[in-house]
Amino acid sequence: MESAIDLIKFDKTDDGLIPAVVQDVNTSAILMVGFMNKAALEKTLSTGLVTFWTRSRQKLWTKGETSGNVLKFKKLRINCNEDSVVVLAEPVGATCHTGHPSCYYRELDDAQADWLTISTPEFDPATVYPK
Amino acid sequence: MESAIDLIKFDKTDDGLIPAVVQDVNTSAILMVGFMNKAALEKTLSTGLVTFWTRSRQKLWTKGETSGNVLKFKKLRINCNEDSVVVLAEPVGATCHTGHPSCYYRELDDAQADWLTISTPEFDPATVYPK
Repeated sequence: MESAIDLIKFDKTDDGLIPAVVQDVNTSAILMVGFMNKAALEKTLSTGLVTFWTRSRQKLWTKGETSGNVLKFKKLRINCNEDSVVVLAEPVGATCHTGHPSCYYRELDDAQADWLTISTPEFDPATVYPK
Repeated sequence: MESAIDLIKFDKTDDGLIPAVVQDVNTSAILMVGFMNKAALEKTLSTGLVTFWTRSRQKLWTKGETSGNVLKFKKLRINCNEDSVVVLAEPVGATCHTGHPSCYYRELDDAQADWLTISTPEFDPATVYPK
C-alpha cells in the first residue's frame, strides 16, 4: 500500500538520510537536528518517540533511550523539495546531552569572535549518562 | 588568524557540508533548511545575506538572488557536536519558492495518510521566477 511518507525523497543521498529538525511544539525552540532514514521515520510514527539514524554508531537511535529524556512525537512537516522534515515534539526533560534544553545553546557574538552560552544546564550529564 | 567559526566541523562529511536551519528571528517559524560549507557561512557573515551551497547546482547560492526574497542574517547558533547551525534571520517576503512563507507548508494528518497544506501562498511563483 502506498503511504504518505513515500513522498519523502530518501534516495537523494547515497546514505538514504534526510535532515530532521526537532522543534518544541510548545515553545517553538529548535531542540536538535538529527538524520532519519525511512526506518527511523517509521519507528517515530509507530512508537510516538522521535527516532534517528546515528551516523556515528550506524544504528537506529531513539532519542532518550539512555537518559529517559525522550521527544514525544506530535506533528511532521515536509519541505517543498520533499527532502527534509520538521518534527514537532514535546520534550521530556532537557534535550541536549550537555543538560541544556536545546543542543543550540551557543550563539556567535556580534563581533563574530566568540561563542556565548545562552542557556543554563538543567542536569549534570555525569548523573544522567553512566560512563 | 583563528576565527570562532573554525569550531564548526565541516570535515565530518565528504562534501564538507553541514545542515543550516533558518529560523525566523521574530516568529520562531522554521523557514527552510539548506546546506553550508565554510565559504557559504563566511559569505553569510560578511554580506549579512544568508547564503548556502546548493547540492543540485554545485555553487554558492544567496537565497533570494533571483526572487529578491532574501534572508537577512541576524544570529548564528551552533549545536553541541559542532556539526550543524541554526541561523536566525529576518525574511524579506515569502521564503519558499512556492510562495509559502515557509518551505514546511505541509503537515502529515493525524491518520498519517495525507499531507495537509497549512499556509497560503503570498505570491504566484510564475510572476517571481522567470522561466
